[in-house]
Amino acid sequence: MKEEIYEKIISLAKRRGFLYPSYEIYGGESGFYDYGPLGTLLKNNIENKWREFYVIGEGFFEISTPVITPYDVLKASGHVDEFIDEIVTCKKCGASFKKEDVAGKCPLCGSEEMVEGKLNLMFETRIGAKKQEMAFLRPETAQGIFVDFPFLYEFFRKKMPFGVVQIGKGFRNEVSPRQGIIRLREFSMAEAEIFFEPDEKSHERFEEIKKEKLTLLTMDDEEMVMEAGQAVEEGIVGSEAMAYYLVLTHRFLTSVGIDKGRIRFRQHKREELAHYARECWDAEIFSERFGWVECVGIADRSAHDLEAHMKATGVDMRAFKKYDEPRKVRRRITKPKMNLLGRDFRKKAVKIAEELKKVDVDGDMENVTVNIDGEEMKIGGEYFEIVEEEVVESGKKFIPHVIEPSHGIDRIFYFILEHNYRETEKEGERYVLLSLPPSMAPIKAGVFPLVSKDGLPEIARNIERILRKRGIMAFYDESGSIGRRYARMDEIGTPFCITVDYQSKEDNTVTIRFRDTTEQVRVKIEEVPEWIEKRL
Amino acid sequence: MKEEIYEKIISLAKRRGFLYPSYEIYGGESGFYDYGPLGTLLKNNIENKWREFYVIGEGFFEISTPVITPYDVLKASGHVDEFIDEIVTCKKCGASFKKEDVAGKCPLCGSEEMVEGKLNLMFETRIGAKKQEMAFLRPETAQGIFVDFPFLYEFFRKKMPFGVVQIGKGFRNEVSPRQGIIRLREFSMAEAEIFFEPDEKSHERFEEIKKEKLTLLTMDDEEMVMEAGQAVEEGIVGSEAMAYYLVLTHRFLTSVGIDKGRIRFRQHKREELAHYARECWDAEIFSERFGWVECVGIADRSAHDLEAHMKATGVDMRAFKKYDEPRKVRRRITKPKMNLLGRDFRKKAVKIAEELKKVDVDGDMENVTVNIDGEEMKIGGEYFEIVEEEVVESGKKFIPHVIEPSHGIDRIFYFILEHNYRETEKEGERYVLLSLPPSMAPIKAGVFPLVSKDGLPEIARNIERILRKRGIMAFYDESGSIGRRYARMDEIGTPFCITVDYQSKEDNTVTIRFRDTTEQVRVKIEEVPEWIEKRL
Repeated sequence: MKEEIYEKIISLAKRRGFLYPSYEIYGGESGFYDYGPLGTLLKNNIENKWREFYVIGEGFFEISTPVITPYDVLKASGHVDEFIDEIVTCKKCGASFKKEDVAGKCPLCGSEEMVEGKLNLMFETRIGAKKQEMAFLRPETAQGIFVDFPFLYEFFRKKMPFGVVQIGKGFRNEVSPRQGIIRLREFSMAEAEIFFEPDEKSHERFEEIKKEKLTLLTMDDEEMVMEAGQAVEEGIVGSEAMAYYLVLTHRFLTSVGIDKGRIRFRQHKREELAHYARECWDAEIFSERFGWVECVGIADRSAHDLEAHMKATGVDMRAFKKYDEPRKVRRRITKPKMNLLGRDFRKKAVKIAEELKKVDVDGDMENVTVNIDGEEMKIGGEYFEIVEEEVVESGKKFIPHVIEPSHGIDRIFYFILEHNYRETEKEGERYVLLSLPPSMAPIKAGVFPLVSKDGLPEIARNIERILRKRGIMAFYDESGSIGRRYARMDEIGTPFCITVDYQSKEDNTVTIRFRDTTEQVRVKIEEVPEWIEKRL
Repeated sequence: MKEEIYEKIISLAKRRGFLYPSYEIYGGESGFYDYGPLGTLLKNNIENKWREFYVIGEGFFEISTPVITPYDVLKASGHVDEFIDEIVTCKKCGASFKKEDVAGKCPLCGSEEMVEGKLNLMFETRIGAKKQEMAFLRPETAQGIFVDFPFLYEFFRKKMPFGVVQIGKGFRNEVSPRQGIIRLREFSMAEAEIFFEPDEKSHERFEEIKKEKLTLLTMDDEEMVMEAGQAVEEGIVGSEAMAYYLVLTHRFLTSVGIDKGRIRFRQHKREELAHYARECWDAEIFSERFGWVECVGIADRSAHDLEAHMKATGVDMRAFKKYDEPRKVRRRITKPKMNLLGRDFRKKAVKIAEELKKVDVDGDMENVTVNIDGEEMKIGGEYFEIVEEEVVESGKKFIPHVIEPSHGIDRIFYFILEHNYRETEKEGERYVLLSLPPSMAPIKAGVFPLVSKDGLPEIARNIERILRKRGIMAFYDESGSIGRRYARMDEIGTPFCITVDYQSKEDNTVTIRFRDTTEQVRVKIEEVPEWIEKRL
């Protein structure tokens, strides 16, 4: 089934309302997918599980910022210059491809005349009545968090570390998105940005996770299974914090139904690192159809982004750390020679002296450039001395470092389907079952009257209504044989099927059938909601 | 406080992490707002409450479709031609404004030389490596639902009526968005599209709501308070279904904290109707600062959208209704005269005859145009007769009509803050309290140790942890006096504050204080989670 599994899943997904090719009645638009009724339930379940991990579990806070991002922001972050793909374009037929996807000839017309080029992957748009202001659709949600750092630092009462997350759309104008839901132009991502002191990438909950084993593929292409703690000790993983988020990612992926035997963490090689990353591990998931595919990137972005926005805007993006006790430190400072400054600069002397005092002394300085009333002035070494003095510092300022686990929701969505797709035969026919974790299943319970008469439908309808009111997605079905109704529910991963039969009228019980074992138990109707809640 | 209330709320919202002006470190970008940590919690609460109404309550299903929408889709829907604002542009300073906002002179430079024009309000972008394909950011989520109609009709097993909802971003490139969060260029919307048989706009749950009273402002500018049922009887509201969604909207708005005395339903006048609407009522909310503001539009879109997409694509967007019993109907059909057709059209005669039989006979037809192998042919009346025959029809095909309640989440968000903002004095200082419904509050419980020692913080931390694990957003705080901590929680609308004191160590109880009454009760620690859940 290797080759066909993607096609089988996409066909099931389309037939049962998980995924629809976008704009299909208009001939389709590659790189876009719709989540249908069941797909949206599953996608919401994935995102809410992610919140359970990062918001409830880690105590991070979620924010929500715009998709449309001004040019200046993405110029500063480096995306305008570096968020590019190397492409080749066929001179004969005009088609373009990612360079890595083409070996010599044009895959469409076979021509060998291919021209190399570069393509910025951001979608452009323009803001304003005259469309005067250039902007992009965000390539990641992260920048919306970084530009809000001063607000967020206040919100967390200036205490580090803290984490901020965002779940939302990201956009990449892919050259040739031929892999369906695996390579989308508009996708859903869940990103966490955790802000640290640069030299404090320890993690307070490291003890809890350090015994957990991970499959690691290092930048030297060595594959190993190793405890997180040991990986940090041996310097394979750069910090406790990085190791902690590798483990958290692993736990999240298995909790939504990814097979733990098909997850590995692959370290980026130096030349492969994104422009903002210092260390990066991809959580890759193995797919029968696509091989190992990156689904989560866990990157140490260091101070890259905050530094870039600070430089571009002049806004102070530094945090302050108060020492436990004030510290005496010796430091070298400039000491202006006021008599010479006064003689040569007259009225400006005081301002120059103030600026000189602020200068960070770095080695021997022959002259210093200061900005006085908007004018740059070079002040020669004859106007100041460099002296050492002892000062008392109550703390230090620093640009926080960031570790970022960034999850591609759409790929995870697809691999959940692939890893839980079970195909068997029943009475000579193909029988499909989705073995989703109950918490992920779009529909938690099918509710069936054994027959559509004698008051059984009313009882079943009532059970459906009660379950829905409790927030348990239930689905009433009275059409076809019970076997056919079970099959329809198995195919979409519904873990429990409740059947109302004649005995129900006598003793107020129903049967509940388990999807994976087909085993059945009898449960009192009044206990059904709690019975199901316990198993979600 | 009339004038200042908006400023006060925006200032509170910014200070406490509800709303941040987007890209503020870059000088800001008007028409965009960020939801901060508390804002996102409140916004998620609003959206989840909306799902409770429409998904859990009504049994509708949610889907999720792309923001980027191809040109053809929005050309067909009418948005390319009709989603426009009339604008005036100042010839002197170049600024543009919505025509309705300007009275003669340029509001910026005072010049009287103003030129009228039109502006399409959609953000443009382009898809593909060579940016060859024009597209827009969707102006509404609805079109994503309409183009999926054939899939959705299958999903609902071809049974009408059914409802499909979408929650997501919409975009309008506003001319001059000067009203902060009230007029955004990127906004969040929640839309439901309910598909009906055209002549079946009755509603099966109408009985439940018909006694509910609504404030209506009709298209003749008459304001009245009237029961929903009477409004339908008197023809003020066009259908039971329309009235049902007016009532549902009213219930939703009051449940999220909008003051029921400040909601009215205003009917669109004929000239004001959107290009797609046959009947439309706006739920308007009264704001001290902005007056009556549209927050929800409930529109009868009739068959407009499905018809438009059917016409543009040729895909059948019709539904089929089976009659209870097959019906004999007499209908007029064309009967081709084969001998004449054969003589004059030779090989094409058979095809022409087939096409002629398909023609809907409408009055006396002097000739009929048929399409044969891509060629249009006009066939004169001498080649066919019109005869009446009796046929048995098992059902009929029709293009469904759509009623759409469309909610602007950002405006509702702001008005929840405005309607629940209470300002008093305490010890000579301004004291602010947000009287949010508990289900809407971003933080459900503050958890405080009375003092930061003697083991009280550990007990409090543990309560916080247990609450969070149950999905109840709790916030631990040990800094400042208890009074100060209460004040911080009151200001963000936290309904309950739990204090751990010395007695807690003895008898495992804590005090819980109510926000609105400041009344306190003692509750056993183990019963706290359930105690709070009951009150959400």
